Amino acid sequence: MKQKFAQIRAQFPILQQTENGHSLVYLDNGATSQKPERVIKAIDDYYRWQNANVHRGVYGLSERATELYEGAREVSRTFLNAKSTREIVFVRGVTEAINLVAQSWARSNLQAGDEIIITEMEHHSNIVPWQLLRDQIGIRLSVLRINQRGEVCMNALKGMVSEKTKLIATTQMSNALGSINPVKEMAAIAHSVGAKILVDGAQATPHMTVDVQDIDCDFYALSGHKMYGPTGIGVLYAKEALLEAMPPYQGGGDMIYSVTFDKTEYNVLPYKFEAGTPHIEGAIGLAEAMRFLNDIGLSDVAAYEAELLAYATERLKQIEGLRIIGEAEHKGGVLSFIIDGVHPHDMATLMDQDGIAVRASHHCAMPVMQHFNVPATVRASFGVYNSFDDIDRLVTSIEEAKEMLL
Amino acid sequence: MKQKFAQIRAQFPILQQTENGHSLVYLDNGATSQKPERVIKAIDDYYRWQNANVHRGVYGLSERATELYEGAREVSRTFLNAKSTREIVFVRGVTEAINLVAQSWARSNLQAGDEIIITEMEHHSNIVPWQLLRDQIGIRLSVLRINQRGEVCMNALKGMVSEKTKLIATTQMSNALGSINPVKEMAAIAHSVGAKILVDGAQATPHMTVDVQDIDCDFYALSGHKMYGPTGIGVLYAKEALLEAMPPYQGGGDMIYSVTFDKTEYNVLPYKFEAGTPHIEGAIGLAEAMRFLNDIGLSDVAAYEAELLAYATERLKQIEGLRIIGEAEHKGGVLSFIIDGVHPHDMATLMDQDGIAVRASHHCAMPVMQHFNVPATVRASFGVYNSFDDIDRLVTSIEEAKEMLL
Repeated sequence: MKQKFAQIRAQFPILQQTENGHSLVYLDNGATSQKPERVIKAIDDYYRWQNANVHRGVYGLSERATELYEGAREVSRTFLNAKSTREIVFVRGVTEAINLVAQSWARSNLQAGDEIIITEMEHHSNIVPWQLLRDQIGIRLSVLRINQRGEVCMNALKGMVSEKTKLIATTQMSNALGSINPVKEMAAIAHSVGAKILVDGAQATPHMTVDVQDIDCDFYALSGHKMYGPTGIGVLYAKEALLEAMPPYQGGGDMIYSVTFDKTEYNVLPYKFEAGTPHIEGAIGLAEAMRFLNDIGLSDVAAYEAELLAYATERLKQIEGLRIIGEAEHKGGVLSFIIDGVHPHDMATLMDQDGIAVRASHHCAMPVMQHFNVPATVRASFGVYNSFDDIDRLVTSIEEAKEMLL
Repeated sequence: MKQKFAQIRAQFPILQQTENGHSLVYLDNGATSQKPERVIKAIDDYYRWQNANVHRGVYGLSERATELYEGAREVSRTFLNAKSTREIVFVRGVTEAINLVAQSWARSNLQAGDEIIITEMEHHSNIVPWQLLRDQIGIRLSVLRINQRGEVCMNALKGMVSEKTKLIATTQMSNALGSINPVKEMAAIAHSVGAKILVDGAQATPHMTVDVQDIDCDFYALSGHKMYGPTGIGVLYAKEALLEAMPPYQGGGDMIYSVTFDKTEYNVLPYKFEAGTPHIEGAIGLAEAMRFLNDIGLSDVAAYEAELLAYATERLKQIEGLRIIGEAEHKGGVLSFIIDGVHPHDMATLMDQDGIAVRASHHCAMPVMQHFNVPATVRASFGVYNSFDDIDRLVTSIEEAKEMLL
């Protein structure tokens, strides 16, 4: 396993460079991931040999670009195990996907007094769109609290839902804590009262197998840049019947069948939700990133990152004064921590001097920080290129920084 | 001039390949443009050596990515001559920019009975967002008609506006006809009744110098992929006071200052309108494309393309049975035409056999097709890499295809 993943690391050009005289230890995968050679090359090849606008051209170049773009949709479909490519809408990323669901599905289906439940561990991208909607149409936004380990409780959720509940919006894996939520069980609870469920898969998709039919979620969102693909591209999966009934989110070219000034007929799925020239290169790069993950095997990715997490957790727990924030039983490769008397920002700045990239921030999850009564944490989050050696260097760097700051 | 532009052509890898045994003559620049080596390289370099998430990291890599991203904003500011980078919002492209203005500015400022004026030559992206808004809040959508040359009339516009008019939304250059609108004059007319003006610059920005302060437009939108930059990125320029007063369009990370479940404070401009991880690579690629255009000089681009257009117009007019659609006095490098008895689609398909990429379509401007009572046109649209030789091959190919089809 170690050898397999050492070979994977070699595929990432950026990891071959030095940072402040040290080889780079990149541990900010929760924010964004690095890109393997094959993804960089797919983008390069596209612009160098294949670039054209899609869907509307009758010449060879445009037909080939369309095949690549629609091929990327099919790769995304199989990656998520969706039933149909009509359920795969390309968006900028999870943030746009959730805003789309809020403004199209929720704004046209919910009314004042209806309830949306989110968890206390959500990223701002799964909080603010619902707050905007609350201000627009007067829904109620309820929060499923987490315990001190950073877990949601299914019994509490069962007690919360009612016929007023129209949607549960939850992350599959917390970016700040690493907690993995039982989204399949949450979907069943949502459906038991006739509510829908939206799953934010930004953190989950690079780290574990996702099967939207098995989860039985109504909406699922992912971001390309978090999973070794390009920026500016992501996927909104939604059940076909829902998309069919939803009004368009944005208007423009490609999402219409015919336009007169009086009356406009919309295009079929998924194009109804893809107004304007899409991020063609992004979809192609994302598909290559999905192939990259498929070739490794997401079960191997999950197993390897679990080993890394176990090792890192054990090592960090030996550092005096260090407190790990988020100790869920089911947890992905994220280690958030604080050290008594040390500001996270100072810690991360010193670690950068050792060539170690970690994040010191509220991780766009301020309510999580409020829950644990900390302004910020230092977060090391893992990817397929991280090694046990990276963990050793992380630990040494923390210890040295601590020495200097205390 | 010819020599200067021949050297520019050599910078585009895709134009060095053959299509159906012929060297590629790419004349579909109205749909999307090809990318010069330096833009491809800027994207490649970013992922290979500089990739990190922006704004939130304390380590060197993230700081450098932030400098590149914010540097791209400054390049965009100077490109448009905006007063401040606070007026430069990165979006997916013109379509998203217009939807943003419709849903944020117009939806919160207009009410039933208020009027938005668009021209008859608009692309669907500047029609459908206003129709969606009309269905939402009951505005009136009025159409400034065009004459048989494909021009709008300023006297007609002066006669249309009233204190009910809140916005004029117009393209600066028609993608279907090539007509260049007098947007500065239109802005003055809008402002004379207290209305705002939005200018769709998708077609104009690759071909002419744009100065938003000189035009005195309130909103201006451009798309990267039309101007030698990547897909999935564009700019919405808006006057700062307008942006300041507008509600956010999408909610999520980066667009907030603080979040609690009760109350969220939004970030300062322009971040209030950039929710989620942005298309970092796209902004960097777009900036490189703008530098590419600046290095050529947009006045040289305009002069050269005017020469190409004059030559092509003269040659095409000699083809019997060929009718040019769109003969505005002020016109950019677009030639839309039909040939009696020949379906545009068949024509373009045959031309593809000669390695010539043109578009046969309604060009996402169905009302223009309705105006001229044609289902579609063949369109040849020029870019900086096109040559007089390309025009000769275009003419030969049209003549041969016509021979075969008639």
